[in-house]
Amino acid sequence: MINVRLTIQYDGTNYAGWQRQKNAVSIQQIIEEAIFSITKEKVNLISSGRTDSGVHALEQVANFLTNTKIPLKSIPKAINSKLPPDIRIISADEVSLDFHSRYSAIKKRYKYIMTNFSFEMPLYRNYAYNIPYKLDIEKMKQQAKSLIGTHDFVGFMGSGSSVKDTVRTIYDIDLYKKDDFIILEVEGNGFLYNMVRIIVGTLVDIGRGKINEDLTLIIESKDRNKAGHTAPAKGLFLKKVYY
Amino acid sequence: MINVRLTIQYDGTNYAGWQRQKNAVSIQQIIEEAIFSITKEKVNLISSGRTDSGVHALEQVANFLTNTKIPLKSIPKAINSKLPPDIRIISADEVSLDFHSRYSAIKKRYKYIMTNFSFEMPLYRNYAYNIPYKLDIEKMKQQAKSLIGTHDFVGFMGSGSSVKDTVRTIYDIDLYKKDDFIILEVEGNGFLYNMVRIIVGTLVDIGRGKINEDLTLIIESKDRNKAGHTAPAKGLFLKKVYY
Repeated sequence: MINVRLTIQYDGTNYAGWQRQKNAVSIQQIIEEAIFSITKEKVNLISSGRTDSGVHALEQVANFLTNTKIPLKSIPKAINSKLPPDIRIISADEVSLDFHSRYSAIKKRYKYIMTNFSFEMPLYRNYAYNIPYKLDIEKMKQQAKSLIGTHDFVGFMGSGSSVKDTVRTIYDIDLYKKDDFIILEVEGNGFLYNMVRIIVGTLVDIGRGKINEDLTLIIESKDRNKAGHTAPAKGLFLKKVYY
Repeated sequence: MINVRLTIQYDGTNYAGWQRQKNAVSIQQIIEEAIFSITKEKVNLISSGRTDSGVHALEQVANFLTNTKIPLKSIPKAINSKLPPDIRIISADEVSLDFHSRYSAIKKRYKYIMTNFSFEMPLYRNYAYNIPYKLDIEKMKQQAKSLIGTHDFVGFMGSGSSVKDTVRTIYDIDLYKKDDFIILEVEGNGFLYNMVRIIVGTLVDIGRGKINEDLTLIIESKDRNKAGHTAPAKGLFLKKVYY
């Protein structure tokens, strides 16, 4: 038996998120079915973490145990032949049997794409969050720096999560303009439920002057009501998982 | 009666192209129906030119005659309220009654996006042509320069076109790499049916060494069989129409 780690890209637009669930099509289900179709094995595909409905991945990581005779280097092509075009296995490699995509991850990097038109542009509608207000980008950049470091991010956690330890460390945050886009990239040792989307929503509310409190104080307050709105899923991309 | 010129962005993925046709949904039909829904007028929306099924537009231009009482500045928002999210009116302005989106156009600029991965990436699948071969980009750039100037492009015209005068002038061509993309931009006084897509296909065939003849000689031959394949619609964007 070997433990195979897959690197996966997907367009999350048409899925109910990563995790298997009843009455909705998930990315996990689609890939597990593709693996079954080529190996006849019912595998449990363990990802680095769930992504919500509409969230995309540039490089999601997931692993599974298998006894397949298919050579490792043929696995991506074999699985891809059974996948719809909005999901692709980029690569496969063998890892030790104790490798676990979620528990072994040491940090993750997310990318969030915004646009700033007076209405949502057709070509970006599924991949960016349009903010139709004047934004003070410099203020957003400056405030974003407060996120770096180890903090209790309980005020930036979406409801419905039962996580107890809400302390996380953010190593890097970068907010920049590029062509038609305003991009936020954030890297940390882990993220709470909806944390990146609430960070983005808070920075947007700061940028448009709806929130005037310093982000440092908002974090310290540990109060979800002091933070901003939850930015939509479609602008969010899991960029990289580090092991 | 006034003549209203619209600037329109659309994602062509889900449409049978610009032009109205039976048994398929066109962008023209959708917008004409939206205009009818707000003005109760059956207008004839004249575009700068058809785009094929799957082709996108950053800024298509189309005009229509109307007696509507809706103020000009409210027209984009009013029409957009009746359009699906993959089509948007960016702006509307009044033009002279003799303005005709196609006949009045003096030049057009197209953008074509390619990727060069070993397989098609989910996030680019509807907006770029993936070429899974090694490409000599420098050679493509150098050969592309031969297109500039006034030539008989009959060898770069798709079958099914009845156009008689096949002489066109290309003013500018630019081929460059940007992030994950190889981009071709081309500007000319007009383009034959499938001409941009055949230019791209020919440059790709040159770049991968499938065609070794100089592009100058291919143009001079006026022979469709000497030019390369027709690149797919999904990588093509109408970028701008000049008046």
